[in-house]
Amino acid sequence: MAQKQIPYKIYLEEQEMPAYWYNVRADMKKKPAPLLDPATGKPITAEALEKVFCRELVKQELDDTTRYIPIPQDILDFYKMYRPAPLIRAYCLEKKLGTPAKIYYKFEGNNTSGSHKLNSAIAQAYYAKEQGLKGVTTETGAGQWGTALSMACSYFGLDCRVYMVKCSYEQKPFRREVMRTYGAQVTPSPSETTAIGRQILAEHPGTTGSLGCAISEAVEAAGSMEGYRYVLGSVLSQVMLHQSVIGMETLAALDKYGEKADIIIGCAGGGSNLGGLIAPFMGQKLRGEADYQFIAVEPSSCPSLTRGKYVYDYCDTGRVCPLAKMYTLGSGFIPAPSHAGGLRYHGMSSVLSELYDEGLMEARSVKQTEVFEAAEYFARIEGILPAPESSHAIKVAMDEAIKCRETGEEKTIVFGLTGTGYFDMMSYEKFHDGKMTDYVPSDEEIAAGMAKLPKID
Amino acid sequence: MAQKQIPYKIYLEEQEMPAYWYNVRADMKKKPAPLLDPATGKPITAEALEKVFCRELVKQELDDTTRYIPIPQDILDFYKMYRPAPLIRAYCLEKKLGTPAKIYYKFEGNNTSGSHKLNSAIAQAYYAKEQGLKGVTTETGAGQWGTALSMACSYFGLDCRVYMVKCSYEQKPFRREVMRTYGAQVTPSPSETTAIGRQILAEHPGTTGSLGCAISEAVEAAGSMEGYRYVLGSVLSQVMLHQSVIGMETLAALDKYGEKADIIIGCAGGGSNLGGLIAPFMGQKLRGEADYQFIAVEPSSCPSLTRGKYVYDYCDTGRVCPLAKMYTLGSGFIPAPSHAGGLRYHGMSSVLSELYDEGLMEARSVKQTEVFEAAEYFARIEGILPAPESSHAIKVAMDEAIKCRETGEEKTIVFGLTGTGYFDMMSYEKFHDGKMTDYVPSDEEIAAGMAKLPKID
Repeated sequence: MAQKQIPYKIYLEEQEMPAYWYNVRADMKKKPAPLLDPATGKPITAEALEKVFCRELVKQELDDTTRYIPIPQDILDFYKMYRPAPLIRAYCLEKKLGTPAKIYYKFEGNNTSGSHKLNSAIAQAYYAKEQGLKGVTTETGAGQWGTALSMACSYFGLDCRVYMVKCSYEQKPFRREVMRTYGAQVTPSPSETTAIGRQILAEHPGTTGSLGCAISEAVEAAGSMEGYRYVLGSVLSQVMLHQSVIGMETLAALDKYGEKADIIIGCAGGGSNLGGLIAPFMGQKLRGEADYQFIAVEPSSCPSLTRGKYVYDYCDTGRVCPLAKMYTLGSGFIPAPSHAGGLRYHGMSSVLSELYDEGLMEARSVKQTEVFEAAEYFARIEGILPAPESSHAIKVAMDEAIKCRETGEEKTIVFGLTGTGYFDMMSYEKFHDGKMTDYVPSDEEIAAGMAKLPKID
Repeated sequence: MAQKQIPYKIYLEEQEMPAYWYNVRADMKKKPAPLLDPATGKPITAEALEKVFCRELVKQELDDTTRYIPIPQDILDFYKMYRPAPLIRAYCLEKKLGTPAKIYYKFEGNNTSGSHKLNSAIAQAYYAKEQGLKGVTTETGAGQWGTALSMACSYFGLDCRVYMVKCSYEQKPFRREVMRTYGAQVTPSPSETTAIGRQILAEHPGTTGSLGCAISEAVEAAGSMEGYRYVLGSVLSQVMLHQSVIGMETLAALDKYGEKADIIIGCAGGGSNLGGLIAPFMGQKLRGEADYQFIAVEPSSCPSLTRGKYVYDYCDTGRVCPLAKMYTLGSGFIPAPSHAGGLRYHGMSSVLSELYDEGLMEARSVKQTEVFEAAEYFARIEGILPAPESSHAIKVAMDEAIKCRETGEEKTIVFGLTGTGYFDMMSYEKFHDGKMTDYVPSDEEIAAGMAKLPKID
C-alpha cells in the first residue's frame, strides 16, 4: 500500500480528537510511591488532600488503576477552541541537517497561554467549578501556568488569584498584563497578604521571591478563604493525566499516516509535558506492544534526574504540601541567577521518577548556551520561535538527528515543542549580546541540597 | 442534503491550499489610478520603479489585467510551514452575544511574526533572491512587518536591514530581539546612517521618529548599496495581491462547508489585510456572481477613508516614493501620541480607495477605548488575545452580530483576525489602568493636513 503523502502539519479532525485521558499508572507494574502527609509521615488520605485540592482532582491524583478517564464535555469543548495541536513534520530542519531521520514535533504553543499548560488548567478549573467553588489560587514563575489558569478560570467564571514570583512580576510585566486581561488578581510574592509571606519578608527583606515561597503563599491563601482551593500546574499525577492529551493526539496523528516513532524526546522541569507526551507510548511499552526510546532533557543547572536522588522530599520550600518520592535536588535547591532557560523545579514528577528509576526512560542534561543556539537555529529553519524550556528538547532532537546522519539510520524522532518564546525575549537578548553564561552546580552544592532532605524512606 | 457539522476550526488540507494569488484589479471596470513619478508628475515607468523595487514585484505592481498569478513553489513550501490559517467558527462568542448570526474569523496570528504580514514578506524576499540581490531594506513601526521580513530573509539567506521608528525601538525591545533572532540588522530611525536621517536629526534633535521618516531612510539606504532594493509591507497593490491568499483560503473553507458570507469585515491601516481578505469575494461581486457587504474599520484617530480626500498624495513624509491616488489625510498627518491601536498610516491602498469611492465597500471608524473593550471581551470568550489592530474588526463584527440579535437576522459574518497582541501588552496595561484616552482629530486638524496635499489631479 502506498504511504500517504505526509503534510507539513498533521491536524486531526475534530472527531479524531481523544475523548479520554490516559492514566499511565494503570499500566505500571510498580506504582509510583504514594504521597505522604507531612504531619504524620503516612500515606496521605483523600480527606486530608481535599482540604487543599478539589475533590475530583484528589480522586484522579490517587487513582493508579483506571486506565482511561473520560474527558468531560465542557473540557472537550474548550479543547476544540485551541486544539488539536499540530504534529509538525520538520521537513526544513531535516533538509538543513542533512539527516536521513524523520523529525516530528508536537507544537503546543499556538494558544494565548503560549504553552501546553492550558491542557491541565482547563481541567482543574472545570472540577473546581463543578464542586461549586468560588475560586482557586496558584503560583507562577515565568507566568505560563498563571496565564493558562487565568484563561481557564475566565471561561468558567471562577475567581483566580495568582502569586507571581516577585522578580518575574517586575521583569515580566507583559505576562502579568495577559493575566489581568483574563481577570486574574496577580500578587507579587512574597507578599503581605499571607503569614508565610510576612514571615519571609521579615527574615529576608528585599527578597525577590522563589517558586517554593509562592506555592506556600498560594496554599495558605486558599486555605484561609471560604470556597477556594489550591491548584498546581506540574509535578502532580493529575496534571500528567490531563497532559496525556498531548501524547494521545500525537499517537493518533502518527497512526493516521502509518508512522511509528523510534525516539521520543521532551524537556523536563516538573515533568508534566514530558509525562503527557510519552504517556500512551509508554503504555504500549509497558504492555509489551511496542518499544520506544524515551529521553528526558533537563538543564544542567537544575539536574534533578541526572544528579538528584530518588527519595521522599518536600514539594515546596514552605513544606506545607504533601511529601513525594521523586528524583530531587532538595527542596531548598534554587538554580543560579544566571539560569534563564526555565525548568527550575528541584524535583521531578513521581511517575516519571519511577519510570526513570526502572530504566524505562533516559535523561540528559544540557547547558543553556547550547540550548539557545539550538533555539535560534530552529527558529530560523522552522519559523517558530521556541520557548527556552522547549528548546532543551530541540537540542537533543537535533543531536539525535545528527547521529542518524553519521550512522545512516532512518529513525523517526518525535519531540515536544511545548511553547513559544515571545515572552522570553530578555533571555534571547542576553544570548544575542553574548552575555549568557553556563552554570553547572558543583558536587558540593548538590551535596548541600541533599543534606537537607527529610529523613524518610 | 444534510449540512456537514462545522468544526470550531476549519483547516484546509495541504492540497486544498490556493496555488494562485488573485488580482482583484483584473475584475475592476475602473482601474485604480496609476502611480505617478514624483519627478515628472507622469505615470511612473517600470524602469523607474525598478530602481527602488525588485523587478518581478514591479511587474506585479503594474499588472492590472492578469486575474490569477501562480504562487512559486518555494513560496508555497514556506506557506505550508505556517498555513493554512484556520477559519474559526466563533461558537463561544455567538453564544455569549445571544445572536442568531454565525460569526467566523480568519486567524492569521499563529506564526512567529504574529500577523498576516508574513504572506507578503516571503513573496517579496523570494523575488529579491530570484533577482540575485544581496539584501533588502525596509521600515517598521510596531515591528510586525520587520519581524515578518526578517523571517522571510532568513529563510532565503538574504541580508535584511530594518529601520525601526525610534520610539518603538526603545519601547518594544522584544520585537527588536525577535528580528535579531532572525539575523536582521535593526537601526533606530532617524539615524546617522542616511542623509535624510542626519537632516531630520539636525532639524529636530531628540525626535522619536515616524513611519514616514523610516520609509525615507530605508529607500535611501537601498539606493546607496549595490544589490539592495527596498520592500514595503502594505499599501502597494503587489502586497494586496500576495495577501489575497487570506481571502482565497477563507472562500475555500466556507465553500467546503457550504457556507456563504453576508458581511465581511477587516481592519484597515494601509489596507493589505483587508484587501487580501475581501479580494476573491469582491471579485465575485464585481463579476455579478454574488453580493456581499464589505466593511473597512479604521481608528477614529486616523480616519483616512471616513474623513480623508480621494486625491494624489505622497506615500511617505520624505516624498521619495511615487505618488498614489488614495483616500488620504495628507502625508504629514501623524496620529496623536495617545493613539495606541496601530493602523496609523495616513492613506489607504489605491485599490481599496477606488472600491470605496465606487460604493462597493463601506467604512467605519471606531474609538480606541471601545476597541480595547472589544479586544478584552473577545480574549476572554474566544481564548485568543488579539492585536489592537485586529480588534477594530472585532468591534464592528460584534456590533453587527448584536444588530442581528435585535432584528433576528441569521447573517453570516466573517472578519479578519490579523494578529495576536503579545507584543502590545503595554497598551493593554494602559487600558487596564484606566489611562487610555480617545482622540478624534478636529476638523481644523484634518483641514491642516489637507492643505499640504500636492497639487495634482
